[in-house]
Amino acid sequence: MDLTKADADAVKARHNDAAGRMEKLRGRNLSLDMTRGKPSPEQLNLSDDLLIAVQPGETDGEDGTDLRNYGGLAGIPEARRLFAEFLGTVPERIIVGGNSSLSMMWDVLSNAMSFGMPDGEGPWRDQGAKFICPVPGYDRHFAICERLGIEMITVEMTPDGPDMDTVRALVADDASVKGIWCVPKYSNPSGETYSDETVQALATMPTAASDFRIMWDNAYAVHHLGDGPASLSDIMKACEAAGHPNRAIVLGSTSKMTHAGAGVAMLASSPDNIKDHLDKIAYAMIGPDKVNQLRHVRFFKNMDGILAHMKKHAEIIAPKFAAVEEALEKNLGGSGLATWTKPDGGYFVSVDVLDGCASKVIARCADAGVKITPAGATYPYGKDPFDKNIRIAPTLPGIDEIKVAMTVLTAAIEEVCTQKLLDT
Amino acid sequence: MDLTKADADAVKARHNDAAGRMEKLRGRNLSLDMTRGKPSPEQLNLSDDLLIAVQPGETDGEDGTDLRNYGGLAGIPEARRLFAEFLGTVPERIIVGGNSSLSMMWDVLSNAMSFGMPDGEGPWRDQGAKFICPVPGYDRHFAICERLGIEMITVEMTPDGPDMDTVRALVADDASVKGIWCVPKYSNPSGETYSDETVQALATMPTAASDFRIMWDNAYAVHHLGDGPASLSDIMKACEAAGHPNRAIVLGSTSKMTHAGAGVAMLASSPDNIKDHLDKIAYAMIGPDKVNQLRHVRFFKNMDGILAHMKKHAEIIAPKFAAVEEALEKNLGGSGLATWTKPDGGYFVSVDVLDGCASKVIARCADAGVKITPAGATYPYGKDPFDKNIRIAPTLPGIDEIKVAMTVLTAAIEEVCTQKLLDT
Repeated sequence: MDLTKADADAVKARHNDAAGRMEKLRGRNLSLDMTRGKPSPEQLNLSDDLLIAVQPGETDGEDGTDLRNYGGLAGIPEARRLFAEFLGTVPERIIVGGNSSLSMMWDVLSNAMSFGMPDGEGPWRDQGAKFICPVPGYDRHFAICERLGIEMITVEMTPDGPDMDTVRALVADDASVKGIWCVPKYSNPSGETYSDETVQALATMPTAASDFRIMWDNAYAVHHLGDGPASLSDIMKACEAAGHPNRAIVLGSTSKMTHAGAGVAMLASSPDNIKDHLDKIAYAMIGPDKVNQLRHVRFFKNMDGILAHMKKHAEIIAPKFAAVEEALEKNLGGSGLATWTKPDGGYFVSVDVLDGCASKVIARCADAGVKITPAGATYPYGKDPFDKNIRIAPTLPGIDEIKVAMTVLTAAIEEVCTQKLLDT
Repeated sequence: MDLTKADADAVKARHNDAAGRMEKLRGRNLSLDMTRGKPSPEQLNLSDDLLIAVQPGETDGEDGTDLRNYGGLAGIPEARRLFAEFLGTVPERIIVGGNSSLSMMWDVLSNAMSFGMPDGEGPWRDQGAKFICPVPGYDRHFAICERLGIEMITVEMTPDGPDMDTVRALVADDASVKGIWCVPKYSNPSGETYSDETVQALATMPTAASDFRIMWDNAYAVHHLGDGPASLSDIMKACEAAGHPNRAIVLGSTSKMTHAGAGVAMLASSPDNIKDHLDKIAYAMIGPDKVNQLRHVRFFKNMDGILAHMKKHAEIIAPKFAAVEEALEKNLGGSGLATWTKPDGGYFVSVDVLDGCASKVIARCADAGVKITPAGATYPYGKDPFDKNIRIAPTLPGIDEIKVAMTVLTAAIEEVCTQKLLDT
């Protein structure tokens, strides 16, 4: 029954029923956490051979370099080759770094603020830099902008990616609009993969800023749930073909492929951008952990190895996403109280409840011992203007925990949203 | 014979002899590199058990945390405990990070420029920040300042550390003098260990800047050559006792203890500074490679393990330093053409030749196939005002290579410096 169109008695009955279930659930003294986009121990186990992938006496690289010693700022050749294939580029256009692509993003933007970018007119800091932030999006992207004083302009996501009419209008005349955050495949949190038309539009659109940058955080490049991965157009090739070779900066990492805290991250871009980035980071480091890069190359062996490995991840996490979907459909399907994503990959399910209800739902869940990511976390400055978006992270908990947590979450949504209907 | 006091014929004879030797050496088509302060393969071999120190199934930390996953910004408790002892502090006052203390130094100063420091009055960038740089010193320290636009003021090193009368005068009235670089033990490149009086003076001196910082890069804390390590007063305790608890920021790393590119770095300071630093780096990273921290704890076990391990390093590199000393003494002893250090630890021998001769000596060596660190590298902006300092890095080459390279270097010094005597 679509409760948004039902009579008050029906809404009241559903509300009372949900409130009763919530009361019982509170009595169970639960302690569950659905906030963290972290792999589960079972997923981490898949990569434990990484720990023994480089044995004593096996630390020379393919070019004879002793990888235990200092140096190698751009990463080791064999890792650059493997991860170039992974990101769809050539080894000369990739830097393989340490354990965090977030650090690479921070390095790109903090250095752009202080020292500028190729094709540009000096430090962004002096130009009142702004960034386009498709919403909902990744809180850590937004936090970097907020910290650096880069003003954030939100643009709504569509099933094909950010609303490109709005994006085009924003970048056309304002030279202080310096870039856009993108999670182009299985977007965080709403799961969309950018369409070919969106990629093409991003690559070709005229921008007032001569040093406009697309921060292409391909965090879920091979993180499919079904038969995927979904296909995604090559942003670097598209930008180059459009005469904007330096526009795209592509980020990736193995954090959700091997061991989340002990992986390797990578940045791919044009020769100009790669040289610029290496020149900048040379002040802050001598080189990444090359032994760990070698571990990853030995462990994966090649791109086929990566894809086979990711199938094993999918086998573990797909049932968890199915349990979330099942609970949402069973308890909220047709109710009109919420809509949600059914992602083909990535790490999140995004639920939109009735406007003004997300914070209350999350508070009700907390009362019942179920932690949900704070409302607003997926928006710049932590403020969801409609207070409607809830992000569910199903990878870390066990499937039985997910089922219980979803019982709580759906009951809370029913209770809070029916109350809103009764109040209006 | 002291050639600076000898007659012209004697100088001319020595010059001709040295020039003849240089000509023969050039004919040998040598290719030797004495530039790099890197450990040798034999030293790296000492730590190869690190590669197998954490096996599958052994990745839980002492507090039950799965160290393969995300998180743990300040480092794992067991590493904080071990390296707190190593740096002479308590676990709460240390951050154990990734593979580079240089990155931590960059983070401290770049964030200070953009966001300021505890006790301060906002971003250093707005205050025309200056830094005191004892010379000769470490080129990468100076490069960070130059890059960030921090003006460098040089102060001469003495056998007890930087000339403290000059330092005291510089910091007393100028609030834009924000800090000082120190390599307090076996200083890079000149090998001094700061005296207790110097440490006390640094801790107690009144500074016009309320947020003055001592960047205490204790890179060679346990890197002795003989019976050491030399004792060094505790700068953090001294600062705290003097009522300046936030003045000292202590850096260390295992780069020259285990595998140079795959070690762990650490930063120790007051509770205020630790909190401030964690708040700042949280924008740029989720956590360090905790598995690699665990490897180091398992490998070293405890402080005794660290000290025993460093004795093995000393056994490998002490004969190399002895070969450098022997060549210098044999060829230049009593000549008046050069003075040099006889360090008790660290990674370098520092040679001062006659003023105006360092660049020429290094060029002559290059002609003969022996690479020496460029003249001026040990001074801010790469400029040695007297063109006299030459840094020798004896750890990486084999002892036979060192002997040949020193034959070249000492002959070049004899040839160039005697020419100077003849010209003046």
